[in-house]
Amino acid sequence: MERTLTEVMTRREDVASTSGAQTTVRCEALIIETSDAPEFIDITDEVQRVVAESGVSFGQATVFSTHTTAAIKVNENEPLLLQDMARLLHQLAPLNAEYGHNDFSRRTVNLDEEECKNGHAHCQHLFLSTSETIPVLDGRLGMGQWQRVFLVELDRARQRRILINIVGVAG
Amino acid sequence: MERTLTEVMTRREDVASTSGAQTTVRCEALIIETSDAPEFIDITDEVQRVVAESGVSFGQATVFSTHTTAAIKVNENEPLLLQDMARLLHQLAPLNAEYGHNDFSRRTVNLDEEECKNGHAHCQHLFLSTSETIPVLDGRLGMGQWQRVFLVELDRARQRRILINIVGVAG
Amino acid sequence: MERTLTEVMTRREDVASTSGAQTTVRCEALIIETSDAPEFIDITDEVQRVVAESGVSFGQATVFSTHTTAAIKVNENEPLLLQDMARLLHQLAPLNAEYGHNDFSRRTVNLDEEECKNGHAHCQHLFLSTSETIPVLDGRLGMGQWQRVFLVELDRARQRRILINIVGVAG
Repeated sequence: MERTLTEVMTRREDVASTSGAQTTVRCEALIIETSDAPEFIDITDEVQRVVAESGVSFGQATVFSTHTTAAIKVNENEPLLLQDMARLLHQLAPLNAEYGHNDFSRRTVNLDEEECKNGHAHCQHLFLSTSETIPVLDGRLGMGQWQRVFLVELDRARQRRILINIVGVAG
Repeated sequence: MERTLTEVMTRREDVASTSGAQTTVRCEALIIETSDAPEFIDITDEVQRVVAESGVSFGQATVFSTHTTAAIKVNENEPLLLQDMARLLHQLAPLNAEYGHNDFSRRTVNLDEEECKNGHAHCQHLFLSTSETIPVLDGRLGMGQWQRVFLVELDRARQRRILINIVGVAG
Repeated sequence: MERTLTEVMTRREDVASTSGAQTTVRCEALIIETSDAPEFIDITDEVQRVVAESGVSFGQATVFSTHTTAAIKVNENEPLLLQDMARLLHQLAPLNAEYGHNDFSRRTVNLDEEECKNGHAHCQHLFLSTSETIPVLDGRLGMGQWQRVFLVELDRARQRRILINIVGVAG
């Protein structure tokens, strides 16, 4: 169940090597209207486009959710699988369980007028990530065949803002 | 439950674009005395200060825990919610469950004199992250309104060392 | 259970500060034959070697799995602990539970000829990360004493491709 590399067949392969006189940083936001929760929205093509237009050839792209109840996850875009994962999130932190965060009679912090009971969404976020950092190779995301980038809405239909922040060397 | 961007209302927004003749890398450590577990310690203001003083205007900051039983997590700083999340971590990997890692009669590896039974802390760490990478925009963390960066102590009162590593282009 | 830094003893420590006329980006792939699942394969020494040979002194290294059923995780390499974590992953998303992704009579998407029933592996991946980003300090990974980087095989014996993408300033 656990091995060290000395016993494992491993091979190294050159992928890229570049030095540039200038560092380029490019940040763009994606504004997305979600419609349900949990909802997996495949944003790979948009991220790819932002990377391609950034002019960065080699470096890395961080896809960052600016929200505490919406996450970024890389996995496969297969509809039945997305339902499996939604079900698992629900099992671990059900919508109707008891959350102190939902008890507005006790809460004194960060309460605004339209406050919704979303303790489950914050708790589901515990298992997911706020961001993913992806290599940029030759102006493209260096992802595998089945990998897709998802915005995961955990709360409800909302407007979400995702940052795509690219750091690297241009052309 | 799953949609592709073609059906989703999406808008793109320019945030930043810069090229610099020099790359700046700045790394600072935060040494923190924790006092309990699980404990969420809000380190956002310190991270913000390190970023501001780094001189980096655009790029990214990686907040990295150098420990296997203390994690970095971005979520909301609402006290009842932090208790909800602590409870969930405890449910998933309780302090008093059986862990091979705690069985010092069988363990032969990485045992030091002050070894504590902390299998639960390592297992809770499985759900969390060692680091978070956050965009730096105009010399500030590009986070949303409710986002705060936490050091999550999972083991016990200990001294912890967090790296804040910033890579980008100076002002 | 939750404290802000004003009440916490904190100390800041300079680690590194450098500016370079050139940004270096170096990407190398590690091809690894896994043999079981779940399996934790310690790739730290290989990652360290790629970082050392990249010529980058300060910056960051992203270790990125190009797969949706193999993850990257930083934790301690203690054999009984790795078994504890494997057991926990199995508890949360058992091999033999029901997954829509495994129901080839209903699935219409991403089916290839050698399709295996691996819904559990995708669901276990939900808790783990596709990548970890690690500070590079003086040509080495800036990790703590017990931290090791693992490729976590969740599916079965397969050939896996891991990218090590380094962005920073050369010596």
